[in-house]
Amino acid sequence: MSAEGFARTPEPPYYAVIFTSQRSGADPEGYAEAAEAMVALAAQQPGHLGVESVRGADGVGITVSYWRSENDILAWKHHVEHAAIRARGRRDWYTRYITRVAKVERAYDWLLKSP
Amino acid sequence: MSAEGFARTPEPPYYAVIFTSQRSGADPEGYAEAAEAMVALAAQQPGHLGVESVRGADGVGITVSYWRSENDILAWKHHVEHAAIRARGRRDWYTRYITRVAKVERAYDWLLKSP
Repeated sequence: MSAEGFARTPEPPYYAVIFTSQRSGADPEGYAEAAEAMVALAAQQPGHLGVESVRGADGVGITVSYWRSENDILAWKHHVEHAAIRARGRRDWYTRYITRVAKVERAYDWLLKSP
Repeated sequence: MSAEGFARTPEPPYYAVIFTSQRSGADPEGYAEAAEAMVALAAQQPGHLGVESVRGADGVGITVSYWRSENDILAWKHHVEHAAIRARGRRDWYTRYITRVAKVERAYDWLLKSP
């Protein structure tokens, strides 16, 4: 993720994985450590283009990771460490999540010009 | 948006508009009022399937709205009230945003079973 919270994605087409989740509230330190490790590990995977992630005070979070291709997404899905952390997420950290895989077709970036 | 923060989307395919934004911090009351009005107005549009929205303490937010078709997205983009609010958003509320339009191809919903 870029410092400002925006992923530096190329011109479409590319793929997005939209992960919406509700935290259980349990094990905040274990969760934070694993989340940070997964972001770092994802960034090393082939075809990873960036990530944007926000969690609100109510425990609902949206993380969108961007990928070059569906094959890159599948490889990350089946990555051994990622699969192990997912199992821990279902056991300890989440009460619900939805994962949606989508093909980005158009993108518009608007930035305030300094006066 | 459902009470729990998850959109009740149908089986794919459908479309997602991923809106990632950085709030300026200015005019919090005007922003909150307009954001609520836009969510309500969007929900009345043809083809609107739901919305998920989170903003973090640092002012970065991700809102994902789900739509039946690209035409429904374009109609909402050109809606008069929506266009007017977008202009106000660029003037007052945001320092940057990225809008990405994507076709959702697969979705997985996981829910913790009560013991």
